[in-house]
Amino acid sequence: MSDGKLITLEGGEGAGKSTAMACIANRLCARGIELVQVREPGGTPAGEAIRALVLDPAHRGLHAQAELLLMFAARAQLVHAVIEPALARGAWVLGDRFTDASFAYQGGGRGLDAGFIAELERRVVARKPDLTLLLDLPVRDGLARARGRGDSDRIETEAEQFFERVRAAYRQRAALEPARWRVVDASQPLDGVLGDLARELDAFVDSVR
Amino acid sequence: MSDGKLITLEGGEGAGKSTAMACIANRLCARGIELVQVREPGGTPAGEAIRALVLDPAHRGLHAQAELLLMFAARAQLVHAVIEPALARGAWVLGDRFTDASFAYQGGGRGLDAGFIAELERRVVARKPDLTLLLDLPVRDGLARARGRGDSDRIETEAEQFFERVRAAYRQRAALEPARWRVVDASQPLDGVLGDLARELDAFVDSVR
Ligand SMILES: Nc1ncnc2c1ncn2[C@@H]1O[C@H](COP(=O)(O)OP(=O)(O)O)[C@@H](O)[C@H]1O
Ligand SMILES: Nc1ncnc2c1ncn2[C@@H]1O[C@H](COP(=O)(O)OP(=O)(O)O)[C@@H](O)[C@H]1O
Ligand SMILES: [Mg+2]
Ligand SMILES: [Mg+2]
Repeated sequence: MSDGKLITLEGGEGAGKSTAMACIANRLCARGIELVQVREPGGTPAGEAIRALVLDPAHRGLHAQAELLLMFAARAQLVHAVIEPALARGAWVLGDRFTDASFAYQGGGRGLDAGFIAELERRVVARKPDLTLLLDLPVRDGLARARGRGDSDRIETEAEQFFERVRAAYRQRAALEPARWRVVDASQPLDGVLGDLARELDAFVDSVR
Repeated sequence: MSDGKLITLEGGEGAGKSTAMACIANRLCARGIELVQVREPGGTPAGEAIRALVLDPAHRGLHAQAELLLMFAARAQLVHAVIEPALARGAWVLGDRFTDASFAYQGGGRGLDAGFIAELERRVVARKPDLTLLLDLPVRDGLARARGRGDSDRIETEAEQFFERVRAAYRQRAALEPARWRVVDASQPLDGVLGDLARELDAFVDSVR
């Protein structure tokens, strides 16, 4: 049995996930929790090679199923080599995206069957996060922020309608499983977002300790 | 409905699959069949990038499930971008390895659950080859031939016991589904092997035309 907890950050492009990672890590550190931070796709040597492949604009013709299987290949490596060993020794894991992103992007965005994604989750991941923080904001605002970061990768160049489906899928998942999800209004100024995240985190830590 | 036929070549390292491809292609050409040749993993830009990743000796710690999902990611791209379009227009497809290789290598060799592999086959490939030619020979002989080719890739550096399990899995699959499989003794001199393959091919073409 593992003692560690798995917390994941989800949301569309430019929602502020990567920006929030360090702050959340500090908050948990301050409470004496050993934390391992990971990002998806990636987080292992094979996973980072898969990330480069998946985001490469040269692979424009990548089929949705191939994309899904690449995401789960990277996730399998991350789960078996990093996440499970960390949780087993009692550390907590903070993920910048995880399985819910496949339901949102390859399921909602690309229209793949959620039953297939759930089957991969069951076979490969065999666990749900203990807490998932959804950074939610209008698609247009997120894309404007993300585009401010520079060159777009293969997924960031999708049409706005694609990201509307991603957002809808995230919100629907959060609504269906409220015990695990917390939805944070990511359209606020950064200090407001970080304040909300800190409050949710503190409540979660108090509830499990 | 597709008119084309899918023929696959299977077998362990150094069995002579790649050597036989050109000969089989000639044989089918001579009978007026338009043929598309593919190899696995690979056969598409994304697939070749995945091939490089999977065979890279640097990824020594790649988990068996990650390997399986990478193989199916490359296969998904190959099926959707190359094989199905070719079969749909009536061309035949000749594959240097296909789904049976996942049952043999990731199933037999690495011990992954065949039920999971069958589920991926059903979801992603949704078809079985019309004819599968198994080039069968003792593991040691095949490895000696393969090593004669030069540097070993990540999979070729596995222990002999791994390849014994791969061979056993191939032979078992051939025994369980004899209508689809033809087992050829690949320990013969090359002209004997090619003669047996030609005979099996001619019989197959006659049976479907
Ligand atoms: N609440 C916010 N208000 C304004 N800009 C933000 C906010 N949160 C993040 N940003 C900026 O938006 C951009 C995208 O943030 P990032 O953390 O990379 O998003 P994500 O990882 O969710 O795609 C960055 O330039 C970041 O500084
Ligand atoms: N029947 C045979 N007898 C002897 N050598 C063979 C025979 N078939 C193939 N070879 C040689 O064995 C090596 C491996 O063959 P190859 O076609 O690359 O095998 P595979 O593609 O099945 O791994 C090559 O150098 C090839 O020339
Ligand atoms: Mg980010
Ligand atoms: Mg070969």
